[in-house]
Amino acid sequence: SASSNGSGTRVMIIGGDGYCGWATALHLSQRGYNVCVVDNLCRRQVWGEISGRHIDLAIGDVCDWEFFGEKFRTFSPDAVVHFGEQRSAPYSMIDRKHAVYTQNNNVIGTLNVLYAIKDFRPDCHLVKLGTMGEYGTPNIDIEEGYITINHNGRSDTLPFPKQGGSFYHLSKVHDSHNMAFAARAWKVAATDLNQGAVGHPLTVYGKGGQTRGYLDIRDTVRCIQIAIDNPAKSGEMRVFNQFTQQFSVNQLAEIVKQGGKKFGLDVQVSNVPNPRVEAEEHYYNAKNTKLQDLGLQPHYLEDSMVDSLLEFALAYKDRVRMELIKPAVDWRAKTGQAAAAAAAK
Amino acid sequence: SASSNGSGTRVMIIGGDGYCGWATALHLSQRGYNVCVVDNLCRRQVWGEISGRHIDLAIGDVCDWEFFGEKFRTFSPDAVVHFGEQRSAPYSMIDRKHAVYTQNNNVIGTLNVLYAIKDFRPDCHLVKLGTMGEYGTPNIDIEEGYITINHNGRSDTLPFPKQGGSFYHLSKVHDSHNMAFAARAWKVAATDLNQGAVGHPLTVYGKGGQTRGYLDIRDTVRCIQIAIDNPAKSGEMRVFNQFTQQFSVNQLAEIVKQGGKKFGLDVQVSNVPNPRVEAEEHYYNAKNTKLQDLGLQPHYLEDSMVDSLLEFALAYKDRVRMELIKPAVDWRAKTGQAAAAAAAK
Ligand SMILES: NC(=O)c1ccc[n+]([C@@H]2O[C@H](COP(=O)([O-])OP(=O)(O)OC[C@H]3O[C@@H](n4cnc5c(N)ncnc54)[C@H](O)[C@@H]3O)[C@@H](O)[C@H]2O)c1
Ligand SMILES: NC(=O)c1ccc[n+]([C@@H]2O[C@H](COP(=O)([O-])OP(=O)(O)OC[C@H]3O[C@@H](n4cnc5c(N)ncnc54)[C@H](O)[C@@H]3O)[C@@H](O)[C@H]2O)c1
Repeated sequence: SASSNGSGTRVMIIGGDGYCGWATALHLSQRGYNVCVVDNLCRRQVWGEISGRHIDLAIGDVCDWEFFGEKFRTFSPDAVVHFGEQRSAPYSMIDRKHAVYTQNNNVIGTLNVLYAIKDFRPDCHLVKLGTMGEYGTPNIDIEEGYITINHNGRSDTLPFPKQGGSFYHLSKVHDSHNMAFAARAWKVAATDLNQGAVGHPLTVYGKGGQTRGYLDIRDTVRCIQIAIDNPAKSGEMRVFNQFTQQFSVNQLAEIVKQGGKKFGLDVQVSNVPNPRVEAEEHYYNAKNTKLQDLGLQPHYLEDSMVDSLLEFALAYKDRVRMELIKPAVDWRAKTGQAAAAAAAK
Repeated sequence: SASSNGSGTRVMIIGGDGYCGWATALHLSQRGYNVCVVDNLCRRQVWGEISGRHIDLAIGDVCDWEFFGEKFRTFSPDAVVHFGEQRSAPYSMIDRKHAVYTQNNNVIGTLNVLYAIKDFRPDCHLVKLGTMGEYGTPNIDIEEGYITINHNGRSDTLPFPKQGGSFYHLSKVHDSHNMAFAARAWKVAATDLNQGAVGHPLTVYGKGGQTRGYLDIRDTVRCIQIAIDNPAKSGEMRVFNQFTQQFSVNQLAEIVKQGGKKFGLDVQVSNVPNPRVEAEEHYYNAKNTKLQDLGLQPHYLEDSMVDSLLEFALAYKDRVRMELIKPAVDWRAKTGQAAAAAAAK
C-alpha cells in the first residue's frame, strides 16, 4: 500500500508532532512526499528520527511570524497541512486564560498560514483540520460546508450556519470564516477537513443520546492524502466532512459492552452528570460523501477493531490513570474554580 | 428629549472615547444613566470633562484582564456597551500584522467582557456593536441574526450565514459566535447590534452598485438606549440590524450631487478602481424592524441633512486632507507593499 503518489510533492505539516499529525507525516513520507514538520512541541518534548526517509523538522510556533514565515518561504511547500492547534475542548473551557490562549493560538496561527501562502506561495494548497463540532447539532441535515437556502422566493448557497459548543470549537469556526475570505479575496486554494472524533469517548455524559461522527485513525491519514492529491482550485474553499460513521454515545457504550463479553468482562455503563452544555437527545444526520467520491474506502468500527482495542487496554490496564478519565472541567464553572489539574484531554 | 429613563442604571461603555461611544456616553449621561467609560485611548490622547453629570473614566485596555476585570467588578454594571474594538476595515487589511492586531484586539476583548459578566455579574446585559458587513451580500434577504431554514423536509432556525469582507468584519463574525455560545452555555443576556455605516463614503469604488445600510448618528445613540432599556433575557442572544435606510454608493453620490446644486457647486462623481474585494452589483435587502418595533423613530437622510453637511464641509474645506480620502489599502496587495501611511480611516 506504500504506493508512491508523492513523487516529491512538498508537504508542510503544521502540528506534525501531534496525534493525527505524526501519523500523517509517517504515512506521506512512506509514500514519497517530501515532508516538513512544523511544531512547537507544546504537547511533548521528545522527537525521534524515523527509518529511511527524511522528515525535515522545524521546531517553533506557527504564531511566531519570524520563525514560521521564514520556514515556509524556504521550504516553499506545494501543500500545507495545518494540524497545529490547541485541540482540547475541555482545556479551552477551564477558565478565561485557557479560552484566550486557545482562540489566540488557533486563530492567529491560521492567519499566519494564510499570509504565508499569500505572500510566498500563492498556489500552495492549504489543507486545514476543522471539526464536525463546528456545526453543533442542528435539527436539519448537516451538509458539507455549504447549504442552498431558499428564502422569500430567492435562493443562495451560503456557508452552513455554525454553532460551536466550546471556545475550542469556536476557534475552528473562526478559522473557517477567515479561510473562506482568503479564498475569495486572494484566490487561496483551501480544503477544510471537518474531522469527526478519532478517539472514542467511553464515558457517557448525561443521557448519552449525543450523536457524532467518527473515523478510524487509518482513514484520517488517507483523507489528508486524498485532499493533497486532489487539491482545491485557486479561490476555492472546499469543505469535506471527514468521518465515516455516526454513533450515539450509548451506541458506542453498547458496542464495547458486547465486545467485552468475549473477554469475559461484564462492562458496566455508568451515566455521569454532563459537564458540557449540549443537547443530550437530538436529530443528527451529517453528509460525508465528498471524500468517498474521491476514493476513500472506510475502515468501519467492527468487532475485530473493538477486540484489538480491548485486548490492548487489558494488557496495559495497570497503566491507566483513572483520575484522568472523569471530566475535570465544567462548562458552567466559574473561572478559577475549575481544576487547573485539568491538563484536560 | 432628556427624559430620565436612566434613573441610575449603571452602564459601562467600552470604547467610549470613540465616535459612536462618546456620543452614546453623552446621550445616556444626560438622561440619568450612571456611566463609566473604559477606553485605551488608542484613537486619541485628549479627554475632557463634560458639564454637570459625572462620567466615570477608566483608561485601560479591555484585553488587559488585570485592569478590565477589576474595573468591571467594582463598577458592577447593569449593562455594558462594547464599542471598544479596532473598527477600520482598510486598517485590518494593511498587512499580516494589522490583521492579527485587529482580530486579537477584538476577539480577545470580547472574550474578556464575556468572562467578566460570567464571573462577576451574570445578569449584566451585554450590548455589543457588530456590523451589517458581517452578512456580506447574499442573494437572499438578510434577516436579523437568525434564519429559518427548511431543508430535506426538516426545519430549524439557525444563525444567519456570515461572509465578512475583511479581517475587521470577520472579527465581528467571530465575536458573534463567541457571544451566542456564552448565551447558550452561561445564560448571558446579549444584544448584538449589527450597525450600518454611520459615516457616508462619497468616493465611488468601481461600479458603485454596492448597497449597504446607513443610519444617522442621532439614531445610533437612541438604538443603544433602546437596547439597554429593553434588555435581552437571560440566555438570549438577540440580534438587531441597526440601520434605517439602504443606499447604493451611486445613489448617495447622486444625493450629494443634487444637494451641491443649491450651493452652486458642480459636484463631480468619479469612479476609482475598487481596492476592496466585493460584488459591485448585487441583490441587497436587509430587515431592520426590531429596533423600530421597540420605538426607534428614524432620522432619515433628507435634503436638510445633506445641506448642513455640505455647509459644514464648505466652511472648513481648507482643512480637508485630500490625500486621506483616496484609498490607501488594497485588499489584494502583498504584505509590506501596502502604505503603512494607511492610518486608514
Ligand atoms: N483527534 C481528534 O479526534 C480530532 C477531531 C477533530 C479535529 N481534530 C483536529 O485535528 C488537529 C490535530 O489533532 P490531534 O488530535 O492530532 O492534536 P494534538 O494535540 O495531538 O496535535 C496538535 C499538534 O499541534 C502542535 N501545536 C499546537 N499549537 C501550535 C502552534 N501554535 N505552533 C506549532 N505547533 C502547534 C502541538 O504541539 C501538537 O503536536 C487539530 O487541529 C484538531 O483540532 C482532531
Ligand atoms: N462608525 C461606524 O460607521 C460603524 C459601523 C458599524 C459598526 N461600528 C462599530 O461600532 C463600534 C464603535 O465604532 P466607532 O466608529 O465609534 O469607532 P472608534 O474607533 O471611533 O471608537 C472605538 C473606541 O474603542 C477604543 N478601543 C479600541 N480597542 C480597545 C481596547 N482593546 N480596549 C479599550 N478601548 C479600545 C478606541 O480607543 C476608540 O476610542 C466599533 O465596534 C465599530 O466596529 C461602527
